[in-house]
Amino acid sequence: MQKSAILTLSCTDKPGLVSRISGFIHSHFGNIISLNEFVDQNSGTFFLRIEWTLDHFELTDDDLKLAFKKEMREIDASWEIHFSDRRLRIALFVSKYDHCIRDILWRHSMGEFDVDIPIIISNHIDMEKIANRYQIPFYHFPLTKENKKKQEDAEIRILEENQIHTIILARYMQILSAEFVAHYPNRIINIHHSFLPAFIGGNPYRQAFERGVKIIGATSHFVTGELDEGPIIVQETVNISHRDKIDDLIRRGRDLERMVLSKAIKLQAEKRILVSGHKTVVFE
Amino acid sequence: MQKSAILTLSCTDKPGLVSRISGFIHSHFGNIISLNEFVDQNSGTFFLRIEWTLDHFELTDDDLKLAFKKEMREIDASWEIHFSDRRLRIALFVSKYDHCIRDILWRHSMGEFDVDIPIIISNHIDMEKIANRYQIPFYHFPLTKENKKKQEDAEIRILEENQIHTIILARYMQILSAEFVAHYPNRIINIHHSFLPAFIGGNPYRQAFERGVKIIGATSHFVTGELDEGPIIVQETVNISHRDKIDDLIRRGRDLERMVLSKAIKLQAEKRILVSGHKTVVFE
Amino acid sequence: MQKSAILTLSCTDKPGLVSRISGFIHSHFGNIISLNEFVDQNSGTFFLRIEWTLDHFELTDDDLKLAFKKEMREIDASWEIHFSDRRLRIALFVSKYDHCIRDILWRHSMGEFDVDIPIIISNHIDMEKIANRYQIPFYHFPLTKENKKKQEDAEIRILEENQIHTIILARYMQILSAEFVAHYPNRIINIHHSFLPAFIGGNPYRQAFERGVKIIGATSHFVTGELDEGPIIVQETVNISHRDKIDDLIRRGRDLERMVLSKAIKLQAEKRILVSGHKTVVFE
Amino acid sequence: MQKSAILTLSCTDKPGLVSRISGFIHSHFGNIISLNEFVDQNSGTFFLRIEWTLDHFELTDDDLKLAFKKEMREIDASWEIHFSDRRLRIALFVSKYDHCIRDILWRHSMGEFDVDIPIIISNHIDMEKIANRYQIPFYHFPLTKENKKKQEDAEIRILEENQIHTIILARYMQILSAEFVAHYPNRIINIHHSFLPAFIGGNPYRQAFERGVKIIGATSHFVTGELDEGPIIVQETVNISHRDKIDDLIRRGRDLERMVLSKAIKLQAEKRILVSGHKTVVFE
Repeated sequence: MQKSAILTLSCTDKPGLVSRISGFIHSHFGNIISLNEFVDQNSGTFFLRIEWTLDHFELTDDDLKLAFKKEMREIDASWEIHFSDRRLRIALFVSKYDHCIRDILWRHSMGEFDVDIPIIISNHIDMEKIANRYQIPFYHFPLTKENKKKQEDAEIRILEENQIHTIILARYMQILSAEFVAHYPNRIINIHHSFLPAFIGGNPYRQAFERGVKIIGATSHFVTGELDEGPIIVQETVNISHRDKIDDLIRRGRDLERMVLSKAIKLQAEKRILVSGHKTVVFE
Repeated sequence: MQKSAILTLSCTDKPGLVSRISGFIHSHFGNIISLNEFVDQNSGTFFLRIEWTLDHFELTDDDLKLAFKKEMREIDASWEIHFSDRRLRIALFVSKYDHCIRDILWRHSMGEFDVDIPIIISNHIDMEKIANRYQIPFYHFPLTKENKKKQEDAEIRILEENQIHTIILARYMQILSAEFVAHYPNRIINIHHSFLPAFIGGNPYRQAFERGVKIIGATSHFVTGELDEGPIIVQETVNISHRDKIDDLIRRGRDLERMVLSKAIKLQAEKRILVSGHKTVVFE
Repeated sequence: MQKSAILTLSCTDKPGLVSRISGFIHSHFGNIISLNEFVDQNSGTFFLRIEWTLDHFELTDDDLKLAFKKEMREIDASWEIHFSDRRLRIALFVSKYDHCIRDILWRHSMGEFDVDIPIIISNHIDMEKIANRYQIPFYHFPLTKENKKKQEDAEIRILEENQIHTIILARYMQILSAEFVAHYPNRIINIHHSFLPAFIGGNPYRQAFERGVKIIGATSHFVTGELDEGPIIVQETVNISHRDKIDDLIRRGRDLERMVLSKAIKLQAEKRILVSGHKTVVFE
Repeated sequence: MQKSAILTLSCTDKPGLVSRISGFIHSHFGNIISLNEFVDQNSGTFFLRIEWTLDHFELTDDDLKLAFKKEMREIDASWEIHFSDRRLRIALFVSKYDHCIRDILWRHSMGEFDVDIPIIISNHIDMEKIANRYQIPFYHFPLTKENKKKQEDAEIRILEENQIHTIILARYMQILSAEFVAHYPNRIINIHHSFLPAFIGGNPYRQAFERGVKIIGATSHFVTGELDEGPIIVQETVNISHRDKIDDLIRRGRDLERMVLSKAIKLQAEKRILVSGHKTVVFE
């Protein structure tokens, strides 16, 4: 595997952006291996994900960053740059359900996600055993109404010490405070066990059962200050019938949840998700 | 094709129901060719759909009905009986969109639905041409706030004259009055262009676009007094992406809508839908 | 959970079968809680799955079997009876891939399958650790051309000692001999990593990649003497694109394989699969 | 709608291609509104689809073509250029089944395909009425073993007179000669009613029924000299069950066929399909 760089950016659309950026890369002897672009006609916003190999590239990583900072300032873009030899660092937040964490850790062991998972954080101790098996440090932060602020502060310290880029809520059954969320804007991914915006909030399978829907779904989304209202990344549904009881919905939902959350993690690991207001651009 | 009878029923569950009903049919020389049953454990309700051939059956249709009336009273059941030589009579209600009506009439011409469609009713005249092509009488009832009650009364007269069993709202863009709906309890099928309960009401594709969902859906359901709250019959979804504009959602939604509505009509034609409170039992 | 009995049977169709069997059950105070029937019009074969509670049933399990034996002889049926307090006993056969076995054992631990898994058999030792974690005896039968017959005989002995009803080939990378298969007719379930009958035999993902298909699939089927030709139980597909390399097909296929195999196991555990020649009747 | 140009090209991958082409467009004041690229790592081939608006573009269409001819020669590329004000011209070939042609013509009337359909060709007269309704000239070429060569020559003359770019075989039940196919390399799109490569040749629904598969599918593909072996464009499948008879497969297949063929037409109309050996690159 050659070392490569990935640039993601969004800015107001204007002529010449692709030419400018691809020209810059080419002029420094980078070879583009993947390019996705999208223009949101409504808002006039340009989105780009571009990846190039660094074999013959003449800039060091730091020089590249510096050069890009200048370029990006000129076109007034939000941007991020990633190097393939520095893997995205993610933290898993879990509670008592094990299906998502198991699936993520197994997929990780199979090499499906090109990320590092240096820590697992939980408000319960149930998942410690699995964390141990995969030799990932497990931090237990029991939560009460009283200690929430203090515990979240401690969590943030550990996240920062571990240089965590993205937090994955793998069925984490606690609502994060607005302050916590503000530390990781569009960097916290949740799995909600319904096809949002239907069945917001608690017990969506029960809500689905009681409404008598013929499909159930799962939604992965970035966490914002508003519950279940963040930018949606991946959604999937599956057909159900009158024979399915709530337990069947929960069972079938587990399959959806782990599939939908894993897809979001893989997309994030590959820097394929760009945020556009309260929506996402997903370059598959 | 042999002549057959279909009995659908629901009642409080008790031991011996299948044995009793299948025994009754067999004792009169009917041969059961299809049987579906379901017990809703929550409510303790028994649902049955049973079909048998009438070749050697020793009761006339009328005697059978009389005999069943007695049986059904004893087990205190809601029930309906249908004979395969008397096809379900349905009326189509349409407005200006043509995709659903076209699909229904073409499928009908292909023999997909074993129904009669004696009338088409519309608040506009746009669909008259298609109705003519298929030689189906077309009734135009323009609607205003003032004439609504009068027009609905006239519609009911025509529906009754034509012995309509089920009304299909094939993108009929008017809300029926509670009085009208009460004439056809669980006999009016609507297509809503979203995966209910998300995006109730007007312009669901715009709502979906603005929320940034990654799936869109369509829902066929029985019409009740509450808007988009009736028992759901069929739902399907399809994946969309950030590249899809509202027009794309509308275009892709047309495919979903006609598919989902046609499935509901076929199920109704074959008496496969039983209502259970505000939910349905669908015997596929 | 009440104790219940499930009868599955198939025989030449004739009038009165449902009435006869449901009448028999009712006359002995069984309460039918689920009934599925199907008549294959081509072959004139009747298929039935019927489940009833045994709370007030007046026959012992052995007397019921005896009584049924007589009934079934009269209608010349193939049949099987199961009691909910005696779980289906299955053996897992595995080689080196872990995704299917992991998924099965985890689902089993969640209570998704109402089966016992008393043994795991493998021609390699790689999966022993997982077997140990779930505390299931692991038997290692290394295979060579020379020892195959001997090893299979030893496997059969262990299977019989453990009263195994159904064998699950969870990516078992060996072809079973015709003699072995004959011991478990329609009781060995395999997962093939393609949508059969496409891409029979080895390396189906490579075959799919080279043909340039836009979907890949997985198929669970009963094993017969002919490779990949047995009765199909469950099939699913997923869309792929030109961007997917063989490794991506393998990765995405893993998700399909475990889903499709798990569905087949659940169906078998609930006795929902009846074989009809080289096809299956699956009562979902 | 602004006028735009679309360039599709493939060539041996080398550094600087995106920069070069986007630079060329930008230097002449074109504004790129869409860009897709793909590098096939196996063959080292670069694929590009790039669209830009021509409002401020300083080259005439002819000058642009000339300039591109030079550019493309230098990088030794296969390429095509399209202008949004000159719609793709397609011909429909049909026989007796009406579901695909109906669907295509209706979608066309809804503006789903940005194409012209100047002619419909058939070996039967059944579809003439529909052609008339949409006011499209209908040509009847009855075929026998003896007249095939002569008739195909006449068809080619009409196709050329009408400047047809792409031929759509909308359930055309004749095999085109190798000579005919050679006139339209990768410009004839067929719909095959199975998930290829399974069930090649005649009567795939019967083949599927007899094999007892649990899914059926449809495949749109370019026509080559080898039957059902051309590059695949779109494939979809749907679940079936033991209850589905051959007629049900045919009925359900109709829905798949029209959906899959329509998707291929839309992709072709938007120049999103590039051929790569016997496979396709589809830029969705």
